[in-house]
Amino acid sequence: MVFLTRRATFSASHYYWNESWSEEQNHQVFGRCANRNGHGHNYTLEVTVAGEPDPVTGFVVDLKGLKDIMEREVLSGFDHRHLNLEVPEFAAGGMIPTTENIARAAWNRLERAVNTVGGARLSAIRVYETPEIFAEYRGGL
Amino acid sequence: MVFLTRRATFSASHYYWNESWSEEQNHQVFGRCANRNGHGHNYTLEVTVAGEPDPVTGFVVDLKGLKDIMEREVLSGFDHRHLNLEVPEFAAGGMIPTTENIARAAWNRLERAVNTVGGARLSAIRVYETPEIFAEYRGGL
Amino acid sequence: MVFLTRRATFSASHYYWNESWSEEQNHQVFGRCANRNGHGHNYTLEVTVAGEPDPVTGFVVDLKGLKDIMEREVLSGFDHRHLNLEVPEFAAGGMIPTTENIARAAWNRLERAVNTVGGARLSAIRVYETPEIFAEYRGGL
Amino acid sequence: MVFLTRRATFSASHYYWNESWSEEQNHQVFGRCANRNGHGHNYTLEVTVAGEPDPVTGFVVDLKGLKDIMEREVLSGFDHRHLNLEVPEFAAGGMIPTTENIARAAWNRLERAVNTVGGARLSAIRVYETPEIFAEYRGGL
Amino acid sequence: MVFLTRRATFSASHYYWNESWSEEQNHQVFGRCANRNGHGHNYTLEVTVAGEPDPVTGFVVDLKGLKDIMEREVLSGFDHRHLNLEVPEFAAGGMIPTTENIARAAWNRLERAVNTVGGARLSAIRVYETPEIFAEYRGGL
Amino acid sequence: MVFLTRRATFSASHYYWNESWSEEQNHQVFGRCANRNGHGHNYTLEVTVAGEPDPVTGFVVDLKGLKDIMEREVLSGFDHRHLNLEVPEFAAGGMIPTTENIARAAWNRLERAVNTVGGARLSAIRVYETPEIFAEYRGGL
Repeated sequence: MVFLTRRATFSASHYYWNESWSEEQNHQVFGRCANRNGHGHNYTLEVTVAGEPDPVTGFVVDLKGLKDIMEREVLSGFDHRHLNLEVPEFAAGGMIPTTENIARAAWNRLERAVNTVGGARLSAIRVYETPEIFAEYRGGL
Repeated sequence: MVFLTRRATFSASHYYWNESWSEEQNHQVFGRCANRNGHGHNYTLEVTVAGEPDPVTGFVVDLKGLKDIMEREVLSGFDHRHLNLEVPEFAAGGMIPTTENIARAAWNRLERAVNTVGGARLSAIRVYETPEIFAEYRGGL
Repeated sequence: MVFLTRRATFSASHYYWNESWSEEQNHQVFGRCANRNGHGHNYTLEVTVAGEPDPVTGFVVDLKGLKDIMEREVLSGFDHRHLNLEVPEFAAGGMIPTTENIARAAWNRLERAVNTVGGARLSAIRVYETPEIFAEYRGGL
Repeated sequence: MVFLTRRATFSASHYYWNESWSEEQNHQVFGRCANRNGHGHNYTLEVTVAGEPDPVTGFVVDLKGLKDIMEREVLSGFDHRHLNLEVPEFAAGGMIPTTENIARAAWNRLERAVNTVGGARLSAIRVYETPEIFAEYRGGL
Repeated sequence: MVFLTRRATFSASHYYWNESWSEEQNHQVFGRCANRNGHGHNYTLEVTVAGEPDPVTGFVVDLKGLKDIMEREVLSGFDHRHLNLEVPEFAAGGMIPTTENIARAAWNRLERAVNTVGGARLSAIRVYETPEIFAEYRGGL
Repeated sequence: MVFLTRRATFSASHYYWNESWSEEQNHQVFGRCANRNGHGHNYTLEVTVAGEPDPVTGFVVDLKGLKDIMEREVLSGFDHRHLNLEVPEFAAGGMIPTTENIARAAWNRLERAVNTVGGARLSAIRVYETPEIFAEYRGGL
């Protein structure tokens, strides 16, 4: 089994806020991240697929096809966006856009598209908020 | 002459918008950066000071003192902020928060504080918006 | 299951020396690392915890709490220290401070503190001695 | 169990071409990588071995020994070479030198040599073609 | 004066060979780089322009315009190419494609196009062959 | 004029201590760096030479020759050493081994050797103590 990873970046704004809490409680738990004007990051997205290299092409997954899927399913919707205001998973009472939840959202957007391309299966999604903090969502492979 | 550089990071939101232009013109010139919900970056700030190392300490500039100045003059005001809404240089008809203008604003905030510490002089300010794009403002040294 | 990793750095000195060996044998096995004046590294410590994101906060682990634990349990004792002389696990006949053993020591210091914070569990500790050499200690998750 | 990884780099040329396809088909599937003059990369090779640290040395594997094996088995044959023309696994009807297949070839070259050194076992081989694309071949550990 | 830098990458093959020398002399001076099958690198190109930020846009140079110029003048001709065989400056008795000469060639290709865009002037070209070796060609600014 | 830079790394220990000060004063000015057991870093050394590329080789400076000079004049004496105890410039009442002074010492060791190799001249020495702190000593070019 070989695991092939492709990395991409996107720049987005977010803030942390739980609507069911008081303003005070939000600031206490989320600190500076509770500033509702938003702040932002250069996120790095790593998509890992697993499979056997195709003996005809040598690829676990077609790299250009994987890039197109990442662009269509995730980057076009996340890049240069305010996650809390413009991305459905996080808007209007959705999940708080933590690094953990961004990784889950990306997995949900990518799983079907990646798994229908060929023999390879989506294996893991890693999202870096900064070089110091990253979250990884792993499937069964 | 020795040049000593200290690097720090901050995460902020911004957008590009010229109030005297039509919406159409803003989108034409600034593209996705004209999204007024804002998007964000992990900015890197590099502050370079120039001078002769002090024969007693071996320092061109006291590193802890420089860190405190950077924190007080720039990072406390820029980090986890929306530049267009919360930072005076860019708010309410101020400069557009391009990488070039962020470097200029940081220079103006740091110049007096750095130059009054000791023999060293502020020499350059470099700001990275992403690893692919950075601006440098250089003084006379 | 989501894995959340936080990275930090510390600068420390060490040397490799087995007290039960002759000087010649130490130099033969450990080469330049057997210089008992010590040499040093900028170590990078990556702490990975695993769990389900809390539906209320979106966090697998409170990031500020994790940072405090890393600071209290590991960094305050390792940073700007000579590992062979000042850190109990490696001093006075303790383990040789190889990258492998530093990872084990960090695991032992962090396991209880991390696992008592909430639902998340310590999953892995990775220590980079240089960008070219790193060791990872993995728990059961 | 501790996993120790050593990283090295090599610079090589390659192209993608399936001899059983027409020129048109090769260009359609492989795009610019089908240019038979070749193009090249600074590859990064990461070799991970797994085991218990030796209580006498603190090492999972002797680092100098591992470096020598990597040099002898892989780097001396891959570095400053044209993979399609000079490396047996990829030459004369062999595998297409994709990142996936380079990782497999490196595993096959390293497995016996690493596993006969001591108690440690080869665990994974990761090959970066660029910082954005990498493949990992994992053994059973 | 503000200096704005944009970074891009390209992957290419090359070798070092002086046609007027014997094979022996080429191998003696150029070592492994004299392998005429070619080897390759992930090159990084940094283009620096200097000027005053436009008060209307905040830009020293239009970033999208600079990207297009870099793509058209340099990257489209260098990326996924064999420099000795396919790039006029280095082919058929041209310059040896050292990092120094690649920087000069990129300067010559970019100078006119950059300087006719607006008030900004091309200031420097930096080319990284690897993270350890880079060359910079500087103009008068 | 083209500037060619070669980068290398070394791992060393140091501490900051002014013999003419009291213990209290040393701790006040140098903080944790005054721990006389020493601590260490992975230093990065960048050596920049300036000149015209030789029309016969395309080199500003022979890269292998430059590497040998760096190894002989600096790395062999600094790597895996305790700067305060084993390096003459810093031992026994010499300079305090700050990043600034390490850059100066490296310049003094390299200047003659580099300038006698050929037409190129030593232009700058940059030393990184960590990725966040670096010093540069510049000559006249």
